[in-house]
Amino acid sequence: MKTVVVRNIQRADSNAIGTFEALGVSTVHEALGRSGLMKTYLRPIYAGAQIAGPAVTVLAQPGDNWMLHVAVEQCRQGDVLVVGCTTDNTDGMFGELLATSLRARGVKGLVIDAGCRDVRALHDMDFPVWSKAISAKGTVKATPGAVNVPVVCAGVNVEPGDAVVADDDGVVVVPRKYCVETAQKAQKRHDDEDGKRQQLAAGVLGLDMYKMREPLEKAGLRYVDNPEDV
Amino acid sequence: MKTVVVRNIQRADSNAIGTFEALGVSTVHEALGRSGLMKTYLRPIYAGAQIAGPAVTVLAQPGDNWMLHVAVEQCRQGDVLVVGCTTDNTDGMFGELLATSLRARGVKGLVIDAGCRDVRALHDMDFPVWSKAISAKGTVKATPGAVNVPVVCAGVNVEPGDAVVADDDGVVVVPRKYCVETAQKAQKRHDDEDGKRQQLAAGVLGLDMYKMREPLEKAGLRYVDNPEDV
Amino acid sequence: MKTVVVRNIQRADSNAIGTFEALGVSTVHEALGRSGLMKTYLRPIYAGAQIAGPAVTVLAQPGDNWMLHVAVEQCRQGDVLVVGCTTDNTDGMFGELLATSLRARGVKGLVIDAGCRDVRALHDMDFPVWSKAISAKGTVKATPGAVNVPVVCAGVNVEPGDAVVADDDGVVVVPRKYCVETAQKAQKRHDDEDGKRQQLAAGVLGLDMYKMREPLEKAGLRYVDNPEDV
Amino acid sequence: MKTVVVRNIQRADSNAIGTFEALGVSTVHEALGRSGLMKTYLRPIYAGAQIAGPAVTVLAQPGDNWMLHVAVEQCRQGDVLVVGCTTDNTDGMFGELLATSLRARGVKGLVIDAGCRDVRALHDMDFPVWSKAISAKGTVKATPGAVNVPVVCAGVNVEPGDAVVADDDGVVVVPRKYCVETAQKAQKRHDDEDGKRQQLAAGVLGLDMYKMREPLEKAGLRYVDNPEDV
Amino acid sequence: MKTVVVRNIQRADSNAIGTFEALGVSTVHEALGRSGLMKTYLRPIYAGAQIAGPAVTVLAQPGDNWMLHVAVEQCRQGDVLVVGCTTDNTDGMFGELLATSLRARGVKGLVIDAGCRDVRALHDMDFPVWSKAISAKGTVKATPGAVNVPVVCAGVNVEPGDAVVADDDGVVVVPRKYCVETAQKAQKRHDDEDGKRQQLAAGVLGLDMYKMREPLEKAGLRYVDNPEDV
Amino acid sequence: MKTVVVRNIQRADSNAIGTFEALGVSTVHEALGRSGLMKTYLRPIYAGAQIAGPAVTVLAQPGDNWMLHVAVEQCRQGDVLVVGCTTDNTDGMFGELLATSLRARGVKGLVIDAGCRDVRALHDMDFPVWSKAISAKGTVKATPGAVNVPVVCAGVNVEPGDAVVADDDGVVVVPRKYCVETAQKAQKRHDDEDGKRQQLAAGVLGLDMYKMREPLEKAGLRYVDNPEDV
Repeated sequence: MKTVVVRNIQRADSNAIGTFEALGVSTVHEALGRSGLMKTYLRPIYAGAQIAGPAVTVLAQPGDNWMLHVAVEQCRQGDVLVVGCTTDNTDGMFGELLATSLRARGVKGLVIDAGCRDVRALHDMDFPVWSKAISAKGTVKATPGAVNVPVVCAGVNVEPGDAVVADDDGVVVVPRKYCVETAQKAQKRHDDEDGKRQQLAAGVLGLDMYKMREPLEKAGLRYVDNPEDV
Repeated sequence: MKTVVVRNIQRADSNAIGTFEALGVSTVHEALGRSGLMKTYLRPIYAGAQIAGPAVTVLAQPGDNWMLHVAVEQCRQGDVLVVGCTTDNTDGMFGELLATSLRARGVKGLVIDAGCRDVRALHDMDFPVWSKAISAKGTVKATPGAVNVPVVCAGVNVEPGDAVVADDDGVVVVPRKYCVETAQKAQKRHDDEDGKRQQLAAGVLGLDMYKMREPLEKAGLRYVDNPEDV
Repeated sequence: MKTVVVRNIQRADSNAIGTFEALGVSTVHEALGRSGLMKTYLRPIYAGAQIAGPAVTVLAQPGDNWMLHVAVEQCRQGDVLVVGCTTDNTDGMFGELLATSLRARGVKGLVIDAGCRDVRALHDMDFPVWSKAISAKGTVKATPGAVNVPVVCAGVNVEPGDAVVADDDGVVVVPRKYCVETAQKAQKRHDDEDGKRQQLAAGVLGLDMYKMREPLEKAGLRYVDNPEDV
Repeated sequence: MKTVVVRNIQRADSNAIGTFEALGVSTVHEALGRSGLMKTYLRPIYAGAQIAGPAVTVLAQPGDNWMLHVAVEQCRQGDVLVVGCTTDNTDGMFGELLATSLRARGVKGLVIDAGCRDVRALHDMDFPVWSKAISAKGTVKATPGAVNVPVVCAGVNVEPGDAVVADDDGVVVVPRKYCVETAQKAQKRHDDEDGKRQQLAAGVLGLDMYKMREPLEKAGLRYVDNPEDV
Repeated sequence: MKTVVVRNIQRADSNAIGTFEALGVSTVHEALGRSGLMKTYLRPIYAGAQIAGPAVTVLAQPGDNWMLHVAVEQCRQGDVLVVGCTTDNTDGMFGELLATSLRARGVKGLVIDAGCRDVRALHDMDFPVWSKAISAKGTVKATPGAVNVPVVCAGVNVEPGDAVVADDDGVVVVPRKYCVETAQKAQKRHDDEDGKRQQLAAGVLGLDMYKMREPLEKAGLRYVDNPEDV
Repeated sequence: MKTVVVRNIQRADSNAIGTFEALGVSTVHEALGRSGLMKTYLRPIYAGAQIAGPAVTVLAQPGDNWMLHVAVEQCRQGDVLVVGCTTDNTDGMFGELLATSLRARGVKGLVIDAGCRDVRALHDMDFPVWSKAISAKGTVKATPGAVNVPVVCAGVNVEPGDAVVADDDGVVVVPRKYCVETAQKAQKRHDDEDGKRQQLAAGVLGLDMYKMREPLEKAGLRYVDNPEDV
């Protein structure tokens, strides 16, 4: 690992990011071809937040949050800070003071493959965090890592500037070069769902709406009237 | 595994189900002789819901929600859909559209040994789900499973038509043939607890109320005044 | 293991406990030299509670809550009950009736390295619990354990009378003999944070406020302008 | 749960069991339509054993091995003992003395959804065990369970007399009524594999042998020469 | 946490330790009243070793093995090094070089609530390790911890000088003051088992040998001939 | 995700790979600056293998091994196949037939973030596999993934052609462009260790050899003679 900070990164298209923030994780993940989703152990520290923004990335050492302090300076209005760790770690690398500092720079939220603390204060100040654990465990500032290099966070490779979308369903990462195309597909998918929702609410079966009966029969599905006929 | 849908199932007694829904999981689980409880990794996606209903069962493949669409047609007013999976899987097999479809048929909720998505929308429409994970991961419709065959869900074998009871404490399954007897025992247990609660609130010790002092002494428990006497 | 109940224990200083309850887990944990924190799998059953009190300790057998009934008698106004288990277990050893009994004696809350049930009722009566799991699984009363002996709970050794502090960030244990000293350090830490928070909110960087730039450079951190310079 | 021992059970066809023991878990699991496989946390305590036999089932309480002693009497030559537990538990319910007793009755091995101890002695006496954990934790004999009732073990419902097959790949359960049919399919599958193995060893690609190229193309798979063409 | 090294510790009785090493973990754990057993996630890096010795304890920081180097100097012939960690961590804090150093001082083995590496080399030099993980992850030497203070390792509180016993069944800790008494009980238990083993091998049922039939009947166990009688 | 196969990839330097295979994972991981190590849940299915080779990468769907068959054709003598999965999955995607096919092409081994089966046969044919689980669970061939695109496997981003090194300590990935430099550093590190090993074996303390006493004192470490002096 190079202990380095990259100052200039290219950020994902801001219109696409606006679309992602409006539509949320599940729709964007589908539009990206069902990829880019972080592992499900990453959870919001409180329910209800929905954000999107370009990633400023951090690679941290276990039990050491030095690089988070370094990363603050590299953040701009609208960014999302994304923290990977060189090994599994649940320590509370982030809390109220760092959030105050990020808030002052306009950062929208944090995604961290480690722990978070001061969760009540973070909720009170509406600073959303998606983390692997809630932990008061304090950290040292002893070993440098890196800022704005590619990091794996919760199973997804994140390049600096990629779009990060997070809500109650989890976190998805859209590679920068696919953002515009993905935003269009996501919007289309969203628009199509309204019609489906109305049909389903009216009692139309998905079996019929999606025309599944024939492929199911071809795949070998049988209907029997009673359990003893199985 | 047979890829089959059983159309006719016998549903658990509706009066018993009404009692279960009123009394909740912990009481019903005790009344059943402390059995039938699903594993604790199954959690409600939001707090506060309490339901009971006969099970319509689904056996699904990992990453594939085809059978959930098939199962909708087999559901009736008051049912609870129960989904097992042929292998450990946390993908988001269920979301707002399927919930809209189930709601249209009067289904009370979902118990799924896999993932769920659109959790904010599900909360907004008051459709309760108990799941193993929250995950936006989309699924395919490629391999059939089965509907209304016995499935193991979160460690419990569920036969179609068994009573499923779910609340903030978890999910318990009452075999259909034991429902009436269990409902009576649950009601009795519930009625007995009021008196106990009042005594305990008044400061009576459980040691005395339950007459535990003598059996504890027989089991070898000693009292000493100070740590150094241990 | 000795099956014994110790009647007389020395409780941690009550002023220190008052300070701990006001300042919360993260601050106290730092003041104690970043030690004493229970594992992060221990979570509050509902958000928002913050308590501190001297520990009455219980060592329980798996699936057996007999000793919790025994322990109630040893509790006083302001205590916190702490339950360890001789082996990993998630059964619902604690629920509404035991909480009613503890409430009658003025106990502030429960920390249990096992499961808890009746969580909605506990929330309604404002009796906070930090547990490893939520589980309706009922327990037997068959094998004695011990009360007021040292127990390991969620990775921390707890002596009877130690101060236990719990909030949304987790649970920390302060050994009785360090309580007064730790309370002073915690208060000082808390007071110092106000100034830092104001500076950070005003946009001062932690890099400058904590004077990190020089040590980072010594530790080998480099800044480059572009990714290709890495 | 009924605290009961069922004395007479019907055991799976012995010829089918012989076939299962010869062919092993993966082949049998495929022949059964890819079902009946226990969860992967169940592991052999030593490598190399491969057994099959009709199940004698036990439902045990956490930390309590009383029912294993009861079950010994119900076992016959060639049986496999299968132990489920009313809740997650890793205690060492089984060790050298119980193995000596089962060996005296001709039992082939043990499958237990809990812990096992004395693993070196068990290896020395060639008594194979598939367990969830290795643990020296001793257990009590305080609360009855049941013998020869259906039990869920590591995610699979096992009826008394079902065929249990276990080897280094895991454990699979074949329902009694499907044993003969499944044995035939397993044998056929095994016989077919020899030809495939020879072709593959000679360098024939599975893509060609299984005629996958056309369906892959239909499913949308593209070939490109270089990464930048993606 | 105090960053301190305690030079003089009292070591457990050497005769008792000899008995523990001969009898192994399961017997000693029973003799201690079924307590003191470390969690089951701690596993030997290779099978077959069986050791006992007084504990030299280390409290380490996550990702930092500095204190292990410090601890070497405090070790004597026959000791067992026991390493706890201030937070969950699986990094490879220990490998061939440290083992070479410990071997030079006559240390029998290592018990570490973190990771171990160079496992093939350690096996070749017959230096046994019980660890939470096998991991090549390198560690820093940046933050001091402590040596010969009480540490919690894999769920057990270990005081310096306590007897540590480890084999394929796990690791048990006997408090120094209970060693002599526990060694006597363990020897007696071991001697008694020979007779039982012979009876069981001859086909005597545990039900009869342990006289369980009457207490089982009192506890409510029923025998029925057929499944439909349940 | 693009469903694509990239035919031409650039493979890491073969001399560097030879060095990596000779030195093993721990040394290479250190030489790379302590990065690139896969998570510790990835374990060899049998002990003793040590390999290195350029990665041919596969992105597979849960429960679906179609892409592994596709990937075989892209493999050359000396390659290592690396399989990531779009979601957590433990199914047995790989077994004896695929190994036969890979062996015919000269592939050295497999690293898979999912399950493996036929482990005894794989051991017999000396085909090493590092996997997340051992599972007989069969898989379908229904949904395409990708071959030779970047994949995250067990927490590490792997580009096609990167060097993969695997032994009993785990799996490390060296980015192609750093291979030559890393091989030199690894060789140097290895050469330096011989001298250290000899000194330590002769009883020299690491404290002295590494000159740690002064920095430890500066970091605040104190020595006391007796526990009561803490």
